[in-house]
Amino acid sequence: MFYTEDVLVMETAIDDMNPEFFPHLLDRLLEAGALDAYLQPVVMKKGRPGTMLTVLARENIQDILLQIIFSETSTLGVRLRTERRACLYRDFITVQTRYGTLRVKLALEGAGGRPLRYAPEYEDCRARAREHGVPVQSVYRAALLAAENMLKDEK
Amino acid sequence: MFYTEDVLVMETAIDDMNPEFFPHLLDRLLEAGALDAYLQPVVMKKGRPGTMLTVLARENIQDILLQIIFSETSTLGVRLRTERRACLYRDFITVQTRYGTLRVKLALEGAGGRPLRYAPEYEDCRARAREHGVPVQSVYRAALLAAENMLKDEK
Amino acid sequence: MFYTEDVLVMETAIDDMNPEFFPHLLDRLLEAGALDAYLQPVVMKKGRPGTMLTVLARENIQDILLQIIFSETSTLGVRLRTERRACLYRDFITVQTRYGTLRVKLALEGAGGRPLRYAPEYEDCRARAREHGVPVQSVYRAALLAAENMLKDEK
Amino acid sequence: MFYTEDVLVMETAIDDMNPEFFPHLLDRLLEAGALDAYLQPVVMKKGRPGTMLTVLARENIQDILLQIIFSETSTLGVRLRTERRACLYRDFITVQTRYGTLRVKLALEGAGGRPLRYAPEYEDCRARAREHGVPVQSVYRAALLAAENMLKDEK
Amino acid sequence: MFYTEDVLVMETAIDDMNPEFFPHLLDRLLEAGALDAYLQPVVMKKGRPGTMLTVLARENIQDILLQIIFSETSTLGVRLRTERRACLYRDFITVQTRYGTLRVKLALEGAGGRPLRYAPEYEDCRARAREHGVPVQSVYRAALLAAENMLKDEK
Amino acid sequence: MFYTEDVLVMETAIDDMNPEFFPHLLDRLLEAGALDAYLQPVVMKKGRPGTMLTVLARENIQDILLQIIFSETSTLGVRLRTERRACLYRDFITVQTRYGTLRVKLALEGAGGRPLRYAPEYEDCRARAREHGVPVQSVYRAALLAAENMLKDEK
Repeated sequence: MFYTEDVLVMETAIDDMNPEFFPHLLDRLLEAGALDAYLQPVVMKKGRPGTMLTVLARENIQDILLQIIFSETSTLGVRLRTERRACLYRDFITVQTRYGTLRVKLALEGAGGRPLRYAPEYEDCRARAREHGVPVQSVYRAALLAAENMLKDEK
Repeated sequence: MFYTEDVLVMETAIDDMNPEFFPHLLDRLLEAGALDAYLQPVVMKKGRPGTMLTVLARENIQDILLQIIFSETSTLGVRLRTERRACLYRDFITVQTRYGTLRVKLALEGAGGRPLRYAPEYEDCRARAREHGVPVQSVYRAALLAAENMLKDEK
Repeated sequence: MFYTEDVLVMETAIDDMNPEFFPHLLDRLLEAGALDAYLQPVVMKKGRPGTMLTVLARENIQDILLQIIFSETSTLGVRLRTERRACLYRDFITVQTRYGTLRVKLALEGAGGRPLRYAPEYEDCRARAREHGVPVQSVYRAALLAAENMLKDEK
Repeated sequence: MFYTEDVLVMETAIDDMNPEFFPHLLDRLLEAGALDAYLQPVVMKKGRPGTMLTVLARENIQDILLQIIFSETSTLGVRLRTERRACLYRDFITVQTRYGTLRVKLALEGAGGRPLRYAPEYEDCRARAREHGVPVQSVYRAALLAAENMLKDEK
Repeated sequence: MFYTEDVLVMETAIDDMNPEFFPHLLDRLLEAGALDAYLQPVVMKKGRPGTMLTVLARENIQDILLQIIFSETSTLGVRLRTERRACLYRDFITVQTRYGTLRVKLALEGAGGRPLRYAPEYEDCRARAREHGVPVQSVYRAALLAAENMLKDEK
Repeated sequence: MFYTEDVLVMETAIDDMNPEFFPHLLDRLLEAGALDAYLQPVVMKKGRPGTMLTVLARENIQDILLQIIFSETSTLGVRLRTERRACLYRDFITVQTRYGTLRVKLALEGAGGRPLRYAPEYEDCRARAREHGVPVQSVYRAALLAAENMLKDEK
């Protein structure tokens, strides 16, 4: 049903940096090839409200990402570990709606297999909603329905 | 004082699913044999307020739990690692209180050793509190006192 | 069962200050007479992980507290509102344990009434635990038992 | 588009109670008629990781809810304020799916007006998913599609 | 030292919406004139991990903002209250650094008064850092120093 | 640019302990030699608002730290893993300001290399601010400027 791969996990908890700097940090990490990056609230020693940064990446860009973290944050140490990751095979289809064309991401039951589930690409929905001046929910739901109909016909 | 064992840790951060679905997910994971499962708030890319799922389990049910996560959530990838776990030996005693019989969990100083500390079983307290129409705190405290007296007599 | 009073609530969300500064801020606010002060994680615009400060106080020290907030943080605006507060009447007793004397706080069923519940003063327990080199839990539990016995005898 | 009403908001921050007790507290508050009740993580003085409780209710049950909070928690004071609330008019429809009958909640554009949006009742979906041994997501999506078709026909 | 004004506070807790939709919501609220908007993690009934939305605004755009919230989220009710807000007077200066020109925001000791403190405009720093391929911290610190020197000369 | 070392990571999620006990626990862990210790909010099974404890340490004090965790908390199991940690080389300088002498921590570009960035020691700033009755921000900024001037002269 799924395949596995190795993924590098990088973590550091930061309590001495202006938090305005975090969104730029996440952008730079993702632009440099990180698979994902996110933040969590933590309570550090003496009751300081800090932020834990987690970054997922392929191992071959470890040093590039460390360079970014060390230059864009106040941290002096970043923890590193390698984990396995179980991943679903995925594919994209394109659907037509009254708001225009959108991509829908499919999670497959195996390599080249049938769709297990699907979800409209959020950033496509947001762009179409902006163009038409409608709520994102309306576009998202139209894309869901279009995907449902397209996939039903294929069976 | 403690023994160690291996435990599988599964993690995934989710930012594109109706959060109403999480409690059912936790229930299904625990029913399938997970040792524990919990959620943490995360801030994902573009400022999305997501949820990190962590599941602890024996390695032999990894694929059953992955199947549940992949069918009950929107995630496309679940991280896996094996950790050691240091555990206290534990035992149960049963105590009598004015609210009825309750179990109290003991943490022991070693296999078959003396109690290090103890805590009333919360779900027992809640059930007795419901029956008697009293606060859970009253039942919990009565169980603490009963355990204290029982264990003092044994010394 | 309870009495009511007015309380001033002050709030501001901060995303552009070194979080190391928060514990000193809370200390200064409490020293200046605030009834309580606490922090909550927030996600601010552009995905910035900020911190919400809440302070409770009597209205007559509003300006002193504002002065502290404006000089010790980066905020440019603090929200203010007056709320009612329903409070239990309270009292203290002193109990003897093998770890020494400790205060136990009582919540009463009305002014001068019977105890509804009670809780050992945490900072007393911590001090006694430090002196005796034992876990805080041991002292706390000893104080709970001593209070239970003292209050039972009074009935 | 919406109507307004008054709602009582009750809040208290708790840092000295076993957190196991919170779910029972929320259940009791909702059973007693609270409109909603929820919890938030807070960092209290001295770095204690506490929990903020918020309860929404009609003013006429204020004292019943205070009684529950004072008997089921460790708090000594609960803040109270009255707010306005802007509410959408709502209605329910019942839809047929391959998993059985489910309710779908409609938000209306005004009293007796057209549906603005709709959402399957989660607890209905969960019950149907349990009966059929399928993911909640499958039932939820089937209900969405059935509602879409029913509402489209009405136009 | 400060002036006060009225501010409308809008709040709603949401546990049944895809969290991908939140950043677009915040953007739309701010574009429509909200003074601020932020999110907090909450635990709602049945253990659902929801999100609390808070919006600050002038009262005259209340209905425009409610319209956005009702069309872009799943909520059926939004709480409203008016609070006072104590604000520092503020001003801007422009500083020259090796990375170019940036604005620095001043908080003043009173209307037209001396600077109490100052902070570089983060988005200016971010833009300059992008242009020069340097860490935001370097630009931010250069702006701090330039402001310090400019303000010292004025005394 | 950085060196790597091994670090032991210990984690446990706790939902059945009075949260007042956490700050003393962190103090004891740090006094016993832990490199860092922090807390995160978690939602545990049945919707309980718990706290995740993370401790970083050298492996040789694992058993001492486990002993503290098992005696000062309610947990029955602590997870253990070894991770690599990438660390910047660091150094201290002492600067003179109008508020007295303070240490400033330097992160270096390599062993014995040039300063990459620097940050005033927060606890030094706090002590000086207390002595002079000024905001911590004023002392912190004075230390930043003094460090900037000292390091500029060295080049």
